[in-house]
Amino acid sequence: MTWQLRSVDLPDLARGATLLGTGGGGDPYIGKMLVERVLGERSITILDPAELDDDLFVIPTAQMGAPTVMIEKIPAGTEPTLALRTLEEHLGKRADATMPIECGGINSMIPLIVAAETGLPVVDADGMGRAFPELSMETFAVYGVHGSPLALAGERGEQVIIDTGDDDRQMEWLARGITIRLGGVGHIAEYAMSGADVKRTAVPRTISMALALGRAIRLAREANRSPFEAIADTLAPTLYSHMRELFAGKVTDVERRTTEGFAKGRAIISPLDPTVEGRFEITFQNENLIARHDGAVVAIVPDLICVVDYESAEPITTEGLRYGQRVRVLGISTPDMMRTPDALAAFGPAAFGIAEPFVPVESHDRT
Amino acid sequence: MTWQLRSVDLPDLARGATLLGTGGGGDPYIGKMLVERVLGERSITILDPAELDDDLFVIPTAQMGAPTVMIEKIPAGTEPTLALRTLEEHLGKRADATMPIECGGINSMIPLIVAAETGLPVVDADGMGRAFPELSMETFAVYGVHGSPLALAGERGEQVIIDTGDDDRQMEWLARGITIRLGGVGHIAEYAMSGADVKRTAVPRTISMALALGRAIRLAREANRSPFEAIADTLAPTLYSHMRELFAGKVTDVERRTTEGFAKGRAIISPLDPTVEGRFEITFQNENLIARHDGAVVAIVPDLICVVDYESAEPITTEGLRYGQRVRVLGISTPDMMRTPDALAAFGPAAFGIAEPFVPVESHDRT
Repeated sequence: MTWQLRSVDLPDLARGATLLGTGGGGDPYIGKMLVERVLGERSITILDPAELDDDLFVIPTAQMGAPTVMIEKIPAGTEPTLALRTLEEHLGKRADATMPIECGGINSMIPLIVAAETGLPVVDADGMGRAFPELSMETFAVYGVHGSPLALAGERGEQVIIDTGDDDRQMEWLARGITIRLGGVGHIAEYAMSGADVKRTAVPRTISMALALGRAIRLAREANRSPFEAIADTLAPTLYSHMRELFAGKVTDVERRTTEGFAKGRAIISPLDPTVEGRFEITFQNENLIARHDGAVVAIVPDLICVVDYESAEPITTEGLRYGQRVRVLGISTPDMMRTPDALAAFGPAAFGIAEPFVPVESHDRT
Repeated sequence: MTWQLRSVDLPDLARGATLLGTGGGGDPYIGKMLVERVLGERSITILDPAELDDDLFVIPTAQMGAPTVMIEKIPAGTEPTLALRTLEEHLGKRADATMPIECGGINSMIPLIVAAETGLPVVDADGMGRAFPELSMETFAVYGVHGSPLALAGERGEQVIIDTGDDDRQMEWLARGITIRLGGVGHIAEYAMSGADVKRTAVPRTISMALALGRAIRLAREANRSPFEAIADTLAPTLYSHMRELFAGKVTDVERRTTEGFAKGRAIISPLDPTVEGRFEITFQNENLIARHDGAVVAIVPDLICVVDYESAEPITTEGLRYGQRVRVLGISTPDMMRTPDALAAFGPAAFGIAEPFVPVESHDRT
């Protein structure tokens, strides 16, 4: 179903997108402000992926860079549209719609900025089904749509086009090099595809899911109901049907460093009651990658590992983690299309250099 | 006058291009082998810049990277033509000719590889009048033709287009970032221009000058005449009319390091007779930048500082400098168009962070 997104929806969408960012994805609140500024009282048309014409021409838009830098370096707001126009000119074809490549964090907002500026509709789908740190970690690529040619725009009007054929990892490598030389943030248009490609390769309805999650958390708080039950109830009928609490406790250690354009590190969470034994550890590279309880893996990428406030369920990014915070860690199952062997090769544990195999978060329930 | 270049000319051209490389510019002997392989018994048409049609469309081609890496990483040979084709496609216009951006070192040969592969003629001119380390150090840019859009090709078929408008330094910065991520060498097409632009902005007849220099050195050796007099006689009627010996001696110290994609360092040359006082020092960044005799500047960029073998006048690159070599250092004046205030701002001493002002090499004669 086609629907209209308005400025009033953006706070809920940002909250949901932070949850789906699983600790990373950049700060959607900055993106939200940019959308609000451009959109005003108008609305953005959101297209249901199942209803797309097969020959609709879609150019996804996004920002790339380390989340740490994104917070410090607020974009002018015109770069994502410049990236889109650069790719349109290169391909000699105008886009009928834009789409996120990632539904978590700031990249849930970038296509909305483009939509507000250009009047283009946005497809309610994405290629990560969460946030991931690299441009090659896309269901688009797993199912045969490649990122090249990619267009990249900088804040001084720089325009770069990168074409590495089917090699999406080399595209990521070169685009990352440009982004670093642009000061840490670049805006991109890539993975241009048809409506038929969207239906075959995208994770569907992730904008509406992010909005529903953010709204459910808010409404539960307002009604003094459990926001955690509200999250679980919202997810149950979606492709992300399983959610459970992996741990509850207090942040007792955080290590992080920004290296090679990524924020890498780990967090330790200890039981609230100091007389209780137990140690919970999360390792992250921009996003949370693996969660261990007393050394045993309880959730692993690409499943979602989300740290939220102990009471309010407000999502907490890896940048926002602080000593002493009382938190809960939620594990959320990813859609089947993100768990195939090809998908796991692109963004499963081995893609991050993690030796442990993927085990679905819901299969740990038995232990 | 239009003339034909044949494989038999290439050893002389390579020798002359090494001299004009003033220590840098990459090894033309590797490029020479690539030209010979592609050219065989055919010839390349060399166009005189003064005779070009004003609306001839010229796309210069070149290699970029640290000379150290160029020696270790021999190009497949097809990348420069891929760069040309990438830029043609981007501009929607086919080139009528190619041209060097630099007449010293390997970049004297790269356009010949393109010519041998495509059948295009080569314009007898370039934008550096020697070798320089950065893509923005071009008479083209000084006189109003900018490098963007630049096309860059990698050995695995990667195609990148960079457009930074009139900002040639930002173009250099981004293209250098891609080149580093391609392993240290990239092949480029940039500074696309008309025949009228060539006449206004290029240093003319530098291919024929390099060939004449290399040939004069060889013929003098064969006739047991002084190759140094042959060099001076060859240069006298050109725009590079002044040549003199700055020093003769033995290399007693060489410091070099490859840093940020450049080979930087210095060489000390001492008198052959150890009872004679005197210390000659050359500082280089890929190319020789400044020569000091007992602390006093005797030649400075953009004038040419060329280290050659003491007897044979064979040019020696900074990579080739070794302790104990007996050498002469030659100072050669650059054309007036390379000594204007705008030209000196682009590639004079200050552009390399050197505090000393430019003083023409011929004005030191009085001391």
